[in-house]
Amino acid sequence: MAERGLLIVLSGPSGVGKGTVREAIFKDPETRFEYSISMTTRKPREGEQDGIDYYFRSREQFEQAIKDGKMLEYAEYVGNYYGTPLDYVEQKLAEGIDIFLEIEIQGAMQVKERMPEGIFIFLTPPDLSELKNRLIGRGTESLEVINERMKTARAEIEMMASYDYAVVNDVVKEAVRKVKGIVETEHLKTERVIHRYQNMLEGF
Amino acid sequence: MAERGLLIVLSGPSGVGKGTVREAIFKDPETRFEYSISMTTRKPREGEQDGIDYYFRSREQFEQAIKDGKMLEYAEYVGNYYGTPLDYVEQKLAEGIDIFLEIEIQGAMQVKERMPEGIFIFLTPPDLSELKNRLIGRGTESLEVINERMKTARAEIEMMASYDYAVVNDVVKEAVRKVKGIVETEHLKTERVIHRYQNMLEGF
Repeated sequence: MAERGLLIVLSGPSGVGKGTVREAIFKDPETRFEYSISMTTRKPREGEQDGIDYYFRSREQFEQAIKDGKMLEYAEYVGNYYGTPLDYVEQKLAEGIDIFLEIEIQGAMQVKERMPEGIFIFLTPPDLSELKNRLIGRGTESLEVINERMKTARAEIEMMASYDYAVVNDVVKEAVRKVKGIVETEHLKTERVIHRYQNMLEGF
Repeated sequence: MAERGLLIVLSGPSGVGKGTVREAIFKDPETRFEYSISMTTRKPREGEQDGIDYYFRSREQFEQAIKDGKMLEYAEYVGNYYGTPLDYVEQKLAEGIDIFLEIEIQGAMQVKERMPEGIFIFLTPPDLSELKNRLIGRGTESLEVINERMKTARAEIEMMASYDYAVVNDVVKEAVRKVKGIVETEHLKTERVIHRYQNMLEGF
């Protein structure tokens, strides 16, 4: 039996650059994990193919999948459903393939509920590491502006606490390297590899 | 206050090549962690300097340090004590410097008792990953030889379970890359970085 694959979840605040990091990861021919194909109720655009770009389904089919507990996570944007089918992910993990999801925070928290064994990576905006400067600004900001910034920063940090790792997206190449390093390191955890050795001994 | 450094402990069975991996790590100018200087009661050899190669101490001084609980770990080999002074490690960690220990399994278990927050890396002999082949051999081994091998393999795997990570030492360069990847990834853990952000917010 193959060692179970890892579920890798990349998330973070809107506009942090999750899509850019994901694209860079999958442009790299050395990337060994697979991107999970989403299911959606929106119409295919020119050139988009079912089962490659998305699983295109009707609203009725999607709602049935939700009812049947067959969505790992889902959300509704601008009148359409988007989500991750559970069966696909389960099948790949069972085959020993690492599955990569790049999703919004709301979706990531749904995944964490159902698959807490996943690796949850929070992509941090570069300016969160310059939080102090941003909050103070150049001394010209009103108290209202500073308070608004603090509120946003607090909310972002609170979200971060639910994740395993935090990666700053300052240089995309560095962020990609760190995400891949996390996955490699997770595979070196003793709890993951010891069974392989134990199984070898069992056979005698 | 600086973020606390990590205590990195590289260990594994005798003859696995811990020293070779450690040397390769510290030859790399990009290595950012420091090697912990050991204390010993053996006499300095030609060219060895106190405080650089070792802390050279008398048997009485070493035994007093043990009594005072000032040794993080120690062992006796061929009539001489070897060990890691606790104060040095504590001071460096408090300064935010990662400290690297390359020690025998017995010592690593002492460190784990006193500093369970350390990162414990088990270097695996390459042939442990070819366990089955090694146990079966070429079909010419006696039952006694196979049993002896199984006993050794079992003991090695049991030791592995006390460690956080297992790195196979097949290609030294790869083992070095993996050890450094583990350290980098450990620094990305949310529990380690979130305080930095929270502290920035506290100041307002």
